Amino acid sequence: AERIRFILGEEDDSPAPPQLFTELDELLAIDGQEMEWKETARWIKFEEKVEQGGERWSKPHVATLSLHSLFELRTCIEKGSIMLDMEASSLPQVVEMIVDNQIETGLLKPELKDKVTYTLLRKHRHQTKKSNLRSLADIGKTVSSASRMFSNPDNDLIFFSFLFPLMQLKNKFMKKLPRDAEASNVLVGEVDFLEGPFIAFVRLQQAVMLGALTEVPVPTRFLFILLGPKGKAKSYHEIGRAIATLMSDEVFHDIAYKAKDRQDLIAGIDEFLDEVIVLPPGEWDPAIRIEPPKSLPSSDKRKNMYSGGENLQMNGDTPHDGGHGGGGHGDCEELQRTGRFCGGLIKDIKRKAPFFASDFYDALNIQALSAILFIYLATVTNAITFGGLLGDATENMQGVLESFLGTAVTGAIFCLFAGQPLTILSSTGPVLVFERLLFNFSKDNDFDYLEFRLWIGLWSAFQCLILVATDASFLVKYFTRFTEEGFSSLISFIFIYDAFKKMIKLADHYPINSEFKVDYITHYSCACEPVDPESCTTCSKAMFSLRVQSNSTVDWSSLTTKECLKYGGQLVGNNCDYVPDITLMSFILFFGTYTCSMALKKFKTSRYFPTTARKLISDFAIILSILIFCGIDALVGVDTPKLIVPSEFKPTSPERGWFIPPFGGNPWWVYLAAAIPALLVTILIFMDQQITAVIVNRKEHKLKKGAGYHLDLFWVAVLMIICSFMGLPWYVAATVISIAHIDSLKMETETSAPGEQPKFLGVREQRVTGFIVFILTGVSVFMAPILKFIPMPVLYGVFLYMGVASLNGVQFMDRLKLLLMPLKHQPDFIYLRHVPLRRVHLFTFLQVVCLALLWILKSTVAAIIFPVMILALVAVRKAMDYLFSQHDLSFLDDVIPEKDKKKKEDEKKKKKKK
Amino acid sequence: AERIRFILGEEDDSPAPPQLFTELDELLAIDGQEMEWKETARWIKFEEKVEQGGERWSKPHVATLSLHSLFELRTCIEKGSIMLDMEASSLPQVVEMIVDNQIETGLLKPELKDKVTYTLLRKHRHQTKKSNLRSLADIGKTVSSASRMFSNPDNDLIFFSFLFPLMQLKNKFMKKLPRDAEASNVLVGEVDFLEGPFIAFVRLQQAVMLGALTEVPVPTRFLFILLGPKGKAKSYHEIGRAIATLMSDEVFHDIAYKAKDRQDLIAGIDEFLDEVIVLPPGEWDPAIRIEPPKSLPSSDKRKNMYSGGENLQMNGDTPHDGGHGGGGHGDCEELQRTGRFCGGLIKDIKRKAPFFASDFYDALNIQALSAILFIYLATVTNAITFGGLLGDATENMQGVLESFLGTAVTGAIFCLFAGQPLTILSSTGPVLVFERLLFNFSKDNDFDYLEFRLWIGLWSAFQCLILVATDASFLVKYFTRFTEEGFSSLISFIFIYDAFKKMIKLADHYPINSEFKVDYITHYSCACEPVDPESCTTCSKAMFSLRVQSNSTVDWSSLTTKECLKYGGQLVGNNCDYVPDITLMSFILFFGTYTCSMALKKFKTSRYFPTTARKLISDFAIILSILIFCGIDALVGVDTPKLIVPSEFKPTSPERGWFIPPFGGNPWWVYLAAAIPALLVTILIFMDQQITAVIVNRKEHKLKKGAGYHLDLFWVAVLMIICSFMGLPWYVAATVISIAHIDSLKMETETSAPGEQPKFLGVREQRVTGFIVFILTGVSVFMAPILKFIPMPVLYGVFLYMGVASLNGVQFMDRLKLLLMPLKHQPDFIYLRHVPLRRVHLFTFLQVVCLALLWILKSTVAAIIFPVMILALVAVRKAMDYLFSQHDLSFLDDVIPEKDKKKKEDEKKKKKKK
Repeated sequence: AERIRFILGEEDDSPAPPQLFTELDELLAIDGQEMEWKETARWIKFEEKVEQGGERWSKPHVATLSLHSLFELRTCIEKGSIMLDMEASSLPQVVEMIVDNQIETGLLKPELKDKVTYTLLRKHRHQTKKSNLRSLADIGKTVSSASRMFSNPDNDLIFFSFLFPLMQLKNKFMKKLPRDAEASNVLVGEVDFLEGPFIAFVRLQQAVMLGALTEVPVPTRFLFILLGPKGKAKSYHEIGRAIATLMSDEVFHDIAYKAKDRQDLIAGIDEFLDEVIVLPPGEWDPAIRIEPPKSLPSSDKRKNMYSGGENLQMNGDTPHDGGHGGGGHGDCEELQRTGRFCGGLIKDIKRKAPFFASDFYDALNIQALSAILFIYLATVTNAITFGGLLGDATENMQGVLESFLGTAVTGAIFCLFAGQPLTILSSTGPVLVFERLLFNFSKDNDFDYLEFRLWIGLWSAFQCLILVATDASFLVKYFTRFTEEGFSSLISFIFIYDAFKKMIKLADHYPINSEFKVDYITHYSCACEPVDPESCTTCSKAMFSLRVQSNSTVDWSSLTTKECLKYGGQLVGNNCDYVPDITLMSFILFFGTYTCSMALKKFKTSRYFPTTARKLISDFAIILSILIFCGIDALVGVDTPKLIVPSEFKPTSPERGWFIPPFGGNPWWVYLAAAIPALLVTILIFMDQQITAVIVNRKEHKLKKGAGYHLDLFWVAVLMIICSFMGLPWYVAATVISIAHIDSLKMETETSAPGEQPKFLGVREQRVTGFIVFILTGVSVFMAPILKFIPMPVLYGVFLYMGVASLNGVQFMDRLKLLLMPLKHQPDFIYLRHVPLRRVHLFTFLQVVCLALLWILKSTVAAIIFPVMILALVAVRKAMDYLFSQHDLSFLDDVIPEKDKKKKEDEKKKKKKK
Repeated sequence: AERIRFILGEEDDSPAPPQLFTELDELLAIDGQEMEWKETARWIKFEEKVEQGGERWSKPHVATLSLHSLFELRTCIEKGSIMLDMEASSLPQVVEMIVDNQIETGLLKPELKDKVTYTLLRKHRHQTKKSNLRSLADIGKTVSSASRMFSNPDNDLIFFSFLFPLMQLKNKFMKKLPRDAEASNVLVGEVDFLEGPFIAFVRLQQAVMLGALTEVPVPTRFLFILLGPKGKAKSYHEIGRAIATLMSDEVFHDIAYKAKDRQDLIAGIDEFLDEVIVLPPGEWDPAIRIEPPKSLPSSDKRKNMYSGGENLQMNGDTPHDGGHGGGGHGDCEELQRTGRFCGGLIKDIKRKAPFFASDFYDALNIQALSAILFIYLATVTNAITFGGLLGDATENMQGVLESFLGTAVTGAIFCLFAGQPLTILSSTGPVLVFERLLFNFSKDNDFDYLEFRLWIGLWSAFQCLILVATDASFLVKYFTRFTEEGFSSLISFIFIYDAFKKMIKLADHYPINSEFKVDYITHYSCACEPVDPESCTTCSKAMFSLRVQSNSTVDWSSLTTKECLKYGGQLVGNNCDYVPDITLMSFILFFGTYTCSMALKKFKTSRYFPTTARKLISDFAIILSILIFCGIDALVGVDTPKLIVPSEFKPTSPERGWFIPPFGGNPWWVYLAAAIPALLVTILIFMDQQITAVIVNRKEHKLKKGAGYHLDLFWVAVLMIICSFMGLPWYVAATVISIAHIDSLKMETETSAPGEQPKFLGVREQRVTGFIVFILTGVSVFMAPILKFIPMPVLYGVFLYMGVASLNGVQFMDRLKLLLMPLKHQPDFIYLRHVPLRRVHLFTFLQVVCLALLWILKSTVAAIIFPVMILALVAVRKAMDYLFSQHDLSFLDDVIPEKDKKKKEDEKKKKKKK
C-alpha cells in the first residue's frame, strides 16, 4: 500500500493516462490449418467475449476470475521479462527485442528464437462485429456461400494494415473509445516446442500502431505475451483474462503506466488482490455472467484510499452520506438571504444572464420537438378546461378565449425572461375558486367585477414585488421533501381524480340505454312534437310566442333536438334520453390512450429494436398515443366530443374590451379596500408559485443553470399587472405540467464503455420549448380545423397519464407501496436499511393524514385557503422533529436548516477535535 | 486437493452431515449499557444481515467477502485453539474448556480467565422477525411505548431457555430448516482487556442446545470464537462473516464435520479459496447485495472434482450437456418398440396401474379447483362453438347438444382410464372439416349420413386398434422440438386468430352507426311497416300468405324485428341496420378480460401481498377476470351476446335418436367402402392425438407417472365406436386446452433456504380435474340459467388468453423475437452462445415458412389433409440434417434418433479408446 501510494502519488501534475482498450488473442489452430492468433475477448471496462461457435460478441459482463489465475499471473510477472518503456515501432521489432531479452537472461534457449518469433508474428484474426441488418439479410442468401464468406476472410497482413483501419473507421465500436485511447494486447497460447513458459510484459515508450494486432485502429501501448508448453491452454486463457482485467482496472491501469520496475507491477497486483470481491463458490454459479452494475463506486475512492482514506466496506454497509440524492434546499446558493434591497433579484439576473444565449441553442434536439407537442396539447387542454370553468364562474366575463390569450401571453413572456424557464404557467384551482367568490361578491354588492379585480391584481402584484425586493423567497428553504412531495402528490391525485370525474360527467351526458334489446329495435324512437299549449302548464310564455311565430312554417319532424326545444317542442319517445356508443367509445379512447402512452413510454427499456428507435418511440409516446387513438376514433366514426377551440379573436363577453379602465366603475374606497383580498391572492400566488419552483429545482433534476426564485416571482407579479389590465386570468406555475415538461426533456449519457449504464445527465434547460408551446397555444385559435379532430376522452387519457407519471419516483409513493408489501419483498431502499419499518410507516401515515385533510379542504369552499394550508404542512413537519429522531428524518426527509443547531454541532465538532 | 479428497472420501457410507444454521453474534454495547452479544447476521445458504438501525433482516443475498478477511481467517485457524469433538453439554462448560485450553497452550494469561469467561457468557440478543401485520398495527399505537417495548425485551437466560423455544415453534423461519438441522455459532467481538486475539474453533461431539445462544431452537454443533483487542471491530466482523460463509458452504461444511485436525480445516479453507469467484474491484460495487442466482451448480460437482473431475470453468463456458432441458423422445421408455402384440398397450397399463389410486388423492389441492373452473369454461365454450359450427355443417344432424353430450362422455371416460389423463379431449378443426365434406357427399349421393358415418367410425376405430396392437405409436419419437413447437404454435395462432375473427364477426352483426350525430337524435328511427304487395317484386308468396292470415289482427308497430320479418313486414328507417353500444361493449369486455387475466396471472411475481394471497390470485386469474367482466357487463347492462346452453336434453334434429342403427340406410357395399375414408380419419386422429400427447408429455413438464401413448390411442378408438353409435362427434386431444390444463396444475417448491428460488417440481398428475370438468360440462345443460350471464366476448377474451399463454416459453417464439432484437439486447440463450446467429435465424425462417404453408393449407378446403402435413414437417426436419450441422441442431432442436448413427458413433468412441 505504501508503494502504491508512492507510485500513484509521485507525478500528480502529469496528465491522466489515456483509456485502454484491451484485447485478448489466443493461438488457435482453426480447421486443422496453421496456428493463428484469434481474438477471443476484449475489454474497455467490462469483458466481452467471443462466443464459442456463436461467432458473436457476448454481452458485456463483469469479468469473473478465479483466484488461482490471479496468483499464476503474479508468478508470471515475477518470473517473466518485464520491459518498460521499450522503444520500438513495429511488431517484428518488439518481438525481436523481447526474444533477445529472454535469451540474454537465459529464459529462452537461443535455438528456439526463430520458432518463437515465427509464432508471435502469425497473423491475427479478429471478431468483426456484423451489423444486425446484415445478419437478417443473410437469411435469404444460400447458406453455403455465406458461411464460406465469413469463415475465410482474406485477412493477410497487407489487407489489415491498409484496408482494415479504413474499414474500421466506420465501426460503431470505435465510438465507444475516446480519441486518445491506447491499446493493450494480450497474447496467450500453447506451443509444442517450448518446455517452460515464455512470458513478457512490455510497455512501449510511445503508443504505436502495430499493424493488424488490434481489432480497432488504436495504437498499442502494452503487450503481454504468454507462450507455454502444450496442455494448459485453459490455464493460459485464464491468465490472459486476468491480466486483461487488470489492465482495464482503473487503479492497476494507472500503476501500469507509472510503474518503474517489476516490483511496482507486483505491488499493483497485490493491491488488486486486496480490493477484490470474493463470491463463495457454493452461493454462485461461475457460469452466470454478471451484468454490469447500474452504478460503480468511483475509482477516485480507491485511489484516495492510498492517501489515507478508510477501508471499503463489504456487503452493503455504505457510509451514510446524506441518505438520498435529492432534497435539502437549506444550502442552496439561490436561497441565501442577501439582506440587501432586491439583492436576490439582482443575483438571480446575474446568475441567469450568462446562460441566456445557451438557453436558445441548447434546444436544438429532436427531443425538444416531442416535448413541445406533448406540453402544447396539455396546455391547450388545460386552457380549455379552465377557460370553460372560468366562463361558467364569471358569466363569461372571462372565458375560453381569455384563457387562451392569457396562457399564451404570460407563458411566452415568462419562458423568455424568467429565472426558471422550465416552469410552465397555467391557471390553478385556487385562483379559479377565488375568481368565483370575487365575481359573486361583486355581483351581490353591485361592484364592477373587472375593475375591482384589476385593483386587487395591482395590489397583489405590488405586494409580490415587495416580497421580491425583500428576498422573501428564501423562506422556501423550509419546504422539505415532506412538504414538496405532499403537495405534488396531492396535485397529481387531483389530476387523476379530475380525469375520471370528467369521464363520468361525459358518461352522464351521453347515457347508455341499458334496457336496449336488439330484437326490439322497432320500439325505440324519439320524435319532436309540438307541445299542446293547453296541457302544458310549465311551459313559459316566451316559448309559446316563439312557437306562435314559427308554428305554421315549422316541419317538426326535421328539427334537431336543440331546435325542437328552442321552438317549444318536446321530445317524445323512449330513446330520447339515450345516446348510443359515445360513452363506451369515450372510455375505450380514455383507457386506450392512457395504456398506450404508458406502454410506449416504457418501450425504451424493452429489448426490441435499436436504441435510437426505442428512444424516439419513448420520447414521442404521448403524441403517438394521441395520434393512434384519434385515428381509431376517426375509423369508428362515433360522434365523440371533440376539442373545440374558439375560432374568433374577440372577448367572450360582448360587454367588455381588451383593456379594463382602472377608474370609474366603483367608489373610490374600493381601490384601497382591494388591498385586503389582494393579500389573500398574494399568499396564494406566492405559495403556488414557489412550491412548484422548488419541485422543479430539486437537486435530483441536476439543473446546471441555477434557479431564480426571485426573478420568477418578479415576472409573475409583472404578468399579473398585464393580465389585470387586459382582464385575463392570473397565472402561476403549474406543478404537474412543469414536471411533465422536465420529464420530457431529460438527458442520458450515450453509453461509453459497453456495459456501462447510461447516466442521467440533467435536463435540457432552455427557453425554446416553453416559448414555442405558448406561441402555439396562441396560434391555436387559428388551428381549430385541425384540433377539432382530437376527441376529449383522448386528452383526458393524457391527463390521467400525466397524473400517474408525475407520481413516479416520489418517495412518498414508494413508502405507500411498502404498506402493501411483505417484509421480504420490500426493495432495498436506503432508508429501510437505517430506519425501523414502523417508523417509516408512521411517517407515511402522518403524511397520508395531512394529505387527506388537505384533500377534504380542497373539495370544499375553503379551497381558497388551500395554499395557506401548505404552510401548515411545514408546521406539521416541524412538529415531527419531536416525534422522530434527526437520524430517521435525515433518511425520510431533509433536515430543516436551523442556525442554532448548526452552530451547536460545529461547536461540538470543534470540541471533539480538541 | 489430495487431502480434501481423502477427508471427503474416507467414510462414504456414513450419513450425510445435517444442514447447518449459522449465526453471527457480535459483542456490542447498546445504549452505553453493558456489552451484549447481538445477532448481526445469519446463514442457511445465503446471508441475511440485520440492518443497522433498520431493526430488520435484509433480503437474503450472496455473501461477498474480501480476500483479506479470508486470509485473516486462515491465520486464525492456524493460530487459535482447535478443539474437535469436545464433550460438553452447556455453554459455561464449553467456555471453561476453551479457556483452560488456551491457558494451557499459553495463548491466554491465566489472570484473564475470569474476564474472558464473563464476556463469553454475556447474554444474547436476537433479531426477532416481527410479522408484517404486527408492524402495520403498530402505527396506531403511541410511538414511545412501542419503541420501549421493542428495545428492551426481557431477554434473560431463563426466558430464553424456557419460553423462547416454545415461542419459536411458531416462528416461520423454523420451517426453512430441516428437522435435524444443527447450528454453528460464530461469536466475534473486541474487548479492552486483551492484547492478543483469543481464537477458538470448537466442534462438539454431540449437538447440544446451548441455552439462548441460537436464534432458533436448534442444537449447536460448532462454535467459533474470536475476541481481540479494541480497534479492529470491522476486521473481526469480516472474519466472522468469512467463517460463517465457509460453514454454509457445502464442501467446507462436510470437511468441518469430518476434519481430524487443524490441517484438515486449513485444507478446507484452501480448497474454498481455490474455488472462489473473484470480481474485479473496478467493475463491481461491493455495496451492491447480489441476489441469489436462479440456479446453482450442484455441490456434488465440486465434491466430485476431488475424485478426478475436470476444472470448473469461469465466465460462462458451461460444458455442453445436451443444450437444453426439454425434448428428445428418442430415449423415452414409453416409446420403445416392444415387437410383441399389444406389447406397448400392456406395458402402458402396467406402468399406469400403480398410480391409479394416487391419481385421485393427488388432486386434493385448492389449485385443482381453479384448474377445474378454468378448463370447464374453456371446454364449454369450445363445445358450444364447435357444436354450432357442426350443426351448421350437418344441418343439425349433430348440433350443440350432441357436442355437449359427446364432450362430457368421451372426456370423462378418457380422463378416468387413459394413459395421460392431463390430456383434454375436444373437437378439432380437421374433424369438423371432414364432417362437413362427409355430410355434403352423403347428401349428394343420397346416403344415410349418420349410418355412413357410423361405419367410417367403426373402420377407423378398428384401424386405430391395429395401430395400438402393433405399437405404432413408437413413431412419435421422430417428432422433434421442431415439429412439436411448429404444431403447437400454429394451433395457438389459430386460437388467437379465431378469437379476433369471432369479435369481428360480432362487430359485423351489431354494426355501429358511425353517422350518428347527437343533435339529430330525432332523425333516427326504425319502424315495422307492412309491405305493399304491389310494389314488392321480390317478396315470396309464402310470406304473403302468412301475412294475409294475420294481416287484420297484426299491430305492426308493436312487432319485434323478427316478428316483423316473419309476418312479411319490412323495416323502414335509417336506424334499422345499426345496433348501439353492443359492439363497443363487446370489445371492452374482450380486451378487458384478456388484459385482466394476463395481469392477474403475472401478479404472482409482484411484490405486493403475502405469497399465498398472490398465488391464489394468480391461480384463479382467469376465473376472477371472467367474474369481474361479467360484473361489468351486468353493471353497464348492455345487451351483449351471452353464452346460451341448450336447456333440454334431446337430439338437436328431431329426425334422429340417441342410437344410430348400423344397417338399413345404405347399400351393403357402402359398409365396406367406408374403410377408405376411414383411413383418412385414422391418420387424422392418430396425428392429432399423438402430437398433442407428445407435447403434454414433454420432459420439461417433469411428469412422474409416465405417459401412455398406446393406452391413450386405445381409448380414443373405443370412444370413437361409442360416439359413432350414438351419433356424437369424434374427439381427439386438443393441444391448447391441454397445455392450459397443465399450466394451471404446475407445482413449485416452497422455498427452503431464504433466497433460494422456488423450483418447478412438476404437474399435479391426477384424473380428478379432467373428470370433474367433463361431468360439469354434462351437467351444464341444467346450468343454463347461471351460464346465460356470461357474455360471449368475455369467453373470446379467455380464448385469446389461452392462445397467447400457450405460446409462452416456446423456443420458436423466443427465436422469432430475436429477429427484432439488436444483438446486444438478446438474452443469453444457450443456443446463442453456441450457434451462429445467422444459422439460428435461418432455422427460424425455415420454420416460419413451414408454418405459413400449413396456415394456408388450413385455411382452404385442403384442411382435411392438415394432420398428414404434420408428417411433412418431420420430413422437412429430416432434410435439415443436410443443411445444419448436428452440433447446431442439438442446440436448436433435438437430434433425430438414428440407430445406424448411434452405432457408428459408438464405434468411433471405441476406436478412440483403443
